[in-house]
Amino acid sequence: MTGGWALLVIDMQRDFCAPGGYADRVGMDITALRRPIPQIQRLLYAARGRGHTIVHTREGHRADLSDCSPAKLERSVAAGAPIGSPGPLGSLLVRGEYGHDIIDELAPHAGEPVVDKPGYGAFHQTDLELILLSAGVQRLVLTGITTEVCVHSTLREAVDRGYRCITVGDACAASDPEIHRAALAMTSGEGNILGRVCDTDEVLRLWAGEAEPT
Amino acid sequence: MTGGWALLVIDMQRDFCAPGGYADRVGMDITALRRPIPQIQRLLYAARGRGHTIVHTREGHRADLSDCSPAKLERSVAAGAPIGSPGPLGSLLVRGEYGHDIIDELAPHAGEPVVDKPGYGAFHQTDLELILLSAGVQRLVLTGITTEVCVHSTLREAVDRGYRCITVGDACAASDPEIHRAALAMTSGEGNILGRVCDTDEVLRLWAGEAEPT
Amino acid sequence: MTGGWALLVIDMQRDFCAPGGYADRVGMDITALRRPIPQIQRLLYAARGRGHTIVHTREGHRADLSDCSPAKLERSVAAGAPIGSPGPLGSLLVRGEYGHDIIDELAPHAGEPVVDKPGYGAFHQTDLELILLSAGVQRLVLTGITTEVCVHSTLREAVDRGYRCITVGDACAASDPEIHRAALAMTSGEGNILGRVCDTDEVLRLWAGEAEPT
Amino acid sequence: MTGGWALLVIDMQRDFCAPGGYADRVGMDITALRRPIPQIQRLLYAARGRGHTIVHTREGHRADLSDCSPAKLERSVAAGAPIGSPGPLGSLLVRGEYGHDIIDELAPHAGEPVVDKPGYGAFHQTDLELILLSAGVQRLVLTGITTEVCVHSTLREAVDRGYRCITVGDACAASDPEIHRAALAMTSGEGNILGRVCDTDEVLRLWAGEAEPT
Repeated sequence: MTGGWALLVIDMQRDFCAPGGYADRVGMDITALRRPIPQIQRLLYAARGRGHTIVHTREGHRADLSDCSPAKLERSVAAGAPIGSPGPLGSLLVRGEYGHDIIDELAPHAGEPVVDKPGYGAFHQTDLELILLSAGVQRLVLTGITTEVCVHSTLREAVDRGYRCITVGDACAASDPEIHRAALAMTSGEGNILGRVCDTDEVLRLWAGEAEPT
Repeated sequence: MTGGWALLVIDMQRDFCAPGGYADRVGMDITALRRPIPQIQRLLYAARGRGHTIVHTREGHRADLSDCSPAKLERSVAAGAPIGSPGPLGSLLVRGEYGHDIIDELAPHAGEPVVDKPGYGAFHQTDLELILLSAGVQRLVLTGITTEVCVHSTLREAVDRGYRCITVGDACAASDPEIHRAALAMTSGEGNILGRVCDTDEVLRLWAGEAEPT
Repeated sequence: MTGGWALLVIDMQRDFCAPGGYADRVGMDITALRRPIPQIQRLLYAARGRGHTIVHTREGHRADLSDCSPAKLERSVAAGAPIGSPGPLGSLLVRGEYGHDIIDELAPHAGEPVVDKPGYGAFHQTDLELILLSAGVQRLVLTGITTEVCVHSTLREAVDRGYRCITVGDACAASDPEIHRAALAMTSGEGNILGRVCDTDEVLRLWAGEAEPT
Repeated sequence: MTGGWALLVIDMQRDFCAPGGYADRVGMDITALRRPIPQIQRLLYAARGRGHTIVHTREGHRADLSDCSPAKLERSVAAGAPIGSPGPLGSLLVRGEYGHDIIDELAPHAGEPVVDKPGYGAFHQTDLELILLSAGVQRLVLTGITTEVCVHSTLREAVDRGYRCITVGDACAASDPEIHRAALAMTSGEGNILGRVCDTDEVLRLWAGEAEPT
């Protein structure tokens, strides 16, 4: 009646979670970024059991970088990890490379769409909205990395589109725990202006019908 | 000064141009749909020589049809060619299938983006706009099939976005020549309200600097 | 269950229906463009009675033309009716002018959103999608002018967004009756590829539950 | 060569800056939200002198709230300030009301577009992108309130669209200074992943040609 749920798993790619990938090259804390894996596994298990829509996303670009704006490319150069430059897991943030793919621990199941996104927000220049509309989804549970960049940009796009959103604090991560907390505080500020922040247990209780949605 | 050119080659896929594909199943005239191939080849040759941006598009869906709206799916069922149903070239209009790919005569060269589109319009829920913006394109030359559905929807999206558009009459085709003419008449009506309609020779002269752009 | 209906009344403005307006200046046949008025009145009456969502649109621009692309402005100059130039009904196609407003015969009732659109398609850079989503609309009935430009661009945007669409042939008009017929033929071709074409009576029977939706 | 500048002044409305408005009702610190006024005045003065594009935005809704998603409306109810409910400055966040308009200190000049936005992000379901494209803008300077909601959502939309962005720290404000700092830290993290953060003096030096753009 109030529309179905979708679990979004944002950018749990080797380029952000494995040594030698983009995040590692930029100097981010890979260990911190891997921390939400067990919580996302629990949410995936529950969502699959309940038949909720599941969408995985991957940030990355066409091999010729034709879908990477000059401004984004320059920022990656300045950060010391040019998009498209070679690395041990393949060209950084390029589709089809080993580093671009989702980590084994969270490998998508058959029938779970993987949305390749050129921006930080997963709605921008992708078919995510069409997928959610076609599935009748109105409620989103957001997980993945990083809390303050791609999860948060996607959240803001979703809120403006009228989706009811939950950001799962312990199923997201940032390299800097301070920034992680700040992004969550920003979300639930002004009376949950960007939706609720919960932990994994709370979402599982909600799906089990033991807690109240909003 | 006035921004670069892009040549768009819309949906020249086996599913629309080969026996056993989607168009054939629906009862369209494959021979008519193949007629623009030589003109598109000439335009591709010229655009490659001049370094213009070239973008190919393919209509089609994810294998699980998660990006196909219920309404579109039902229309294909009513037309006798359900999207996703098996055929001699693979599941109809499904990405990764042989029938979904571009015909050999117009195979994209390396570095020419291929945009996979779930709608008729090539801008809808794709990264086409980002590609054109990143390349500094402001002028579009539209070719491909069909004149009245995918070429025309893409044209209308482009016109509203402020692109200067040329639809190349003899480099487009419809199954029904009457409808082809009607779509072109609709384009150039009210003083080229949807941009100019030219033939291939005129575009080549324009690119060669022997004719006036508008 | 299948989502609510919305009646769209596209661009029934003085600038297109009154002497001295934009269409008149361009040399279009005002009498032809006014022909659907009685049918739209019948549809509005029925839609109001049934509580269907009703949205009116107006094409036009900010007074400083900051939302008018250079390409669109140049086309209007070439057509002999520059957007923003003075006329007896006010500056052509400029918001706030007398000519920009909806004709008295079809004046919106309180609570019926009027969407001001800078493009031909009513979804482009407007809040139409948000209005339809918030109202739970999934089925559109399209009326207004012109059949081949603004009604048709809006139809194509709606189809790609998954809406189930009906274009009401006798509640739309073009200056050229040939083009009107061609636009409708294009819509219902390939097995209603852009949705159904009906006349007003059929829509009224449909809403009354005496005919089958699709 | 690198595209023009635009100054964005986000949501400096009475509803956020005056006693009795929306922000006041929610319990935000009006004094904090008014703090950037002098800096924005300096930036407006300089931008006007240099002929940069200036765009003002206002958050708000149609009087019938047809463009307000049920989720957004419910959040405002939970926050104790239902959108559309009566207040001393008029219905909260409703277009046409006194409270919805921009404060006198920052009143737009003629020819400066005011974009009415139903979301937090100024690109969502508005004509902002068309205005920036038509003006040839590629560089944005973001100011206004609140740093963490509307300025930040707009920033994220702009970054994904390829604009080069500067958030002016002392020309933005949040009710909570902690959150203000966090939003700015989030912006300039990972090597300015969401663009640079400057203060007003630095932007003025940049426009005067005394500092290096990026």
